Amino acid sequence: MVQPSLSRRGADAPASPIRRLAPFADAARARGVHVHQLNIGQPDIHTSSTMLAAYRSYSDDVVAYSPSQGTLALRTALAGYYGDNGLHGDLAPVTPDQVLVTVGGSEALLFTIAAACDPGDNILVAEPYYTNYRGFAHLLGCDVVPVPTYAAERFAVKAERVRERVNARTRAVVLPSPGNPTGAVLDRKGLADIGAVCVERGLFMVVDEVYREFVYRPDLVGSVSPSALSVPGLEDVAVVIDSVSKRYSACGARVGCLVTRNASFYAACLCFAQARLSPPTVDQFAAEAALKTPAAELRANIQAYQRRRDVVVAGLNAIDGVSCPTPEGAFYLVADLPVEDAEAFCRFLLDDFDLDGETLMLAPAEGFYATPGAGRSQVRVAYVLDIPALERCLAILEAGLAAYAQRA
Amino acid sequence: MVQPSLSRRGADAPASPIRRLAPFADAARARGVHVHQLNIGQPDIHTSSTMLAAYRSYSDDVVAYSPSQGTLALRTALAGYYGDNGLHGDLAPVTPDQVLVTVGGSEALLFTIAAACDPGDNILVAEPYYTNYRGFAHLLGCDVVPVPTYAAERFAVKAERVRERVNARTRAVVLPSPGNPTGAVLDRKGLADIGAVCVERGLFMVVDEVYREFVYRPDLVGSVSPSALSVPGLEDVAVVIDSVSKRYSACGARVGCLVTRNASFYAACLCFAQARLSPPTVDQFAAEAALKTPAAELRANIQAYQRRRDVVVAGLNAIDGVSCPTPEGAFYLVADLPVEDAEAFCRFLLDDFDLDGETLMLAPAEGFYATPGAGRSQVRVAYVLDIPALERCLAILEAGLAAYAQRA
Repeated sequence: MVQPSLSRRGADAPASPIRRLAPFADAARARGVHVHQLNIGQPDIHTSSTMLAAYRSYSDDVVAYSPSQGTLALRTALAGYYGDNGLHGDLAPVTPDQVLVTVGGSEALLFTIAAACDPGDNILVAEPYYTNYRGFAHLLGCDVVPVPTYAAERFAVKAERVRERVNARTRAVVLPSPGNPTGAVLDRKGLADIGAVCVERGLFMVVDEVYREFVYRPDLVGSVSPSALSVPGLEDVAVVIDSVSKRYSACGARVGCLVTRNASFYAACLCFAQARLSPPTVDQFAAEAALKTPAAELRANIQAYQRRRDVVVAGLNAIDGVSCPTPEGAFYLVADLPVEDAEAFCRFLLDDFDLDGETLMLAPAEGFYATPGAGRSQVRVAYVLDIPALERCLAILEAGLAAYAQRA
Repeated sequence: MVQPSLSRRGADAPASPIRRLAPFADAARARGVHVHQLNIGQPDIHTSSTMLAAYRSYSDDVVAYSPSQGTLALRTALAGYYGDNGLHGDLAPVTPDQVLVTVGGSEALLFTIAAACDPGDNILVAEPYYTNYRGFAHLLGCDVVPVPTYAAERFAVKAERVRERVNARTRAVVLPSPGNPTGAVLDRKGLADIGAVCVERGLFMVVDEVYREFVYRPDLVGSVSPSALSVPGLEDVAVVIDSVSKRYSACGARVGCLVTRNASFYAACLCFAQARLSPPTVDQFAAEAALKTPAAELRANIQAYQRRRDVVVAGLNAIDGVSCPTPEGAFYLVADLPVEDAEAFCRFLLDDFDLDGETLMLAPAEGFYATPGAGRSQVRVAYVLDIPALERCLAILEAGLAAYAQRA
């Protein structure tokens, strides 16, 4: 008799740094402590009104499989949205057969990494990175190679640093813009410069643009962040990841897509998609309705995030020893705390601290770095609560840091 | 400048034999021909009434992420359903923390193969196999090793043949019961015998039980097929795949799960699950309601399938040169046709044939075999239409075979 053993990828699978403190938050709640959650990008903002109405009006008698690439209606609606927002710049508009609907942006990342990389290959990611890039690479037997970015440079991704890190097994660069966890936004020149490295070295350029409306720089407000789909010369190289999760505050709908003009890349991803049959059908119907969300509703949401950002950035930098640059997009920031080990401090907040019965859950940033020891004093903050709650969180953080410094 | 190239797994990704003829069916429809679809397990049966009502009553304002392992409410409801159906036999009942909710049974297979296998490892599958076992293994850099079964033995899976095929890189046996595409059902002894091989050789035993209510053998009617969760000695080895797709005729809901008593296996799968954040939230809410489907409604559906099976099996065996054994479960069968190349014949039905403006889409069975040349004269038939439509399909098949034999 032989005990079956886990695969190495199973045994070594990284727990999500965003989610792995959840049991300690549950324990705090069980003690009657209210836990404000700034660890995860789950906004309190209501889901798109047209989307909610669509769920409630679903009238088919059979919730059937959809085509593996998603319904034609949703792919057509998405292509229309990309065109309306000028994502293609001076290039040809995106067509529905360049859009492959996936189970959230998550599955788009899985298919994209698999179509670019074999086991042992790697992807370049700007560090600190969206942690699930590593999760999917790991699942597929691939590595992430970090390209450093720095708070002092507002976490800007520099093309020359990307070039330096390319090695013989590198197959793609995977970047979010606007950035998670840093909030950094790539401008047109930044995209073109990194794109030039990709073209020079034969890499796919994968840009995760799920926060494109969440931009706060004066020249971008009311518009969208520049898209990799608009850069001439990247037609065969660019793959864009998208999702309805953030734009329509519908994280639980699990509808996203990948967009590419590279037909053989699309065909490979479609084969992967056929294996899992289809994305969820009712959610696709609701996502189609989400694309009809009134512009004023979306604009009000973005403005709410901008006000939240301003409150949180000012409040954090006002706390002794805490610092963060002002993010230009998304709804995250990376803050440096006056502690040696931010994970231990985050545990302390959940296990041993409350301010009048309330505490705070943050995401330790070390899990967003591959470089050993990097980010140990940092946390990611998702400013996804209303301003009174965020002000309360700032007070809890300040009191928590003071109490932590005075432990035995 | 270097053109980026697809990974080998991307370039070699197998198109689904169930779905790859879809463009030819679309072309037939564009010519005005009605295409009866027996190629895919998409029933015409209405989705569970309680489930449909739940979609229409969803009332949260924010469609938020759920926990990565699924909502506690759904996991508790699933554990209750397993208990009510006695899946555990004489062993301890399944608990909610042994249930991990996934995006359909598909994702449960992905996580399970990844937790068992590293790139280069293999899984044993009974041939003809559910084609997506191969799709997921391929995506993960793993191989499938076929264990042959034969129409003359009603496609029964024999433990001694499983044992013969185990090699140094084998990590799991993956079997559906009731079987897709064959309809074969493993009895308790069959499960125990194959389980003994797994225990002897240190393999996980993964049983895909999504059709457990679809059983037509007199001793099983009104009950469920025996579960791997009931076999003593397999506690650390057994992983069960489940889904609401077939039981509640809700293929598009994309809610499934994996069930295992092996805590470290569960923990590895949970890490994979965290990378994709969560299964769809509204669909989980609907799935919870599906578990309250009136028993009479489910029973009527199963009885409808049994009548369909009887019509199709009798009708197929009455056509000159066509033969199939009587399947004991699920809603598929594998039939042998009097043609050399069933894929060419399936294309002929779509491209060059109609009977009074109607034709038929079948799944060529060769894609369900890894052994070269095996299954070339076979098709998979999903008896998922009502009896008048099935009778029409039988007439189309008979006329199509006659026309095909008389081509130039």
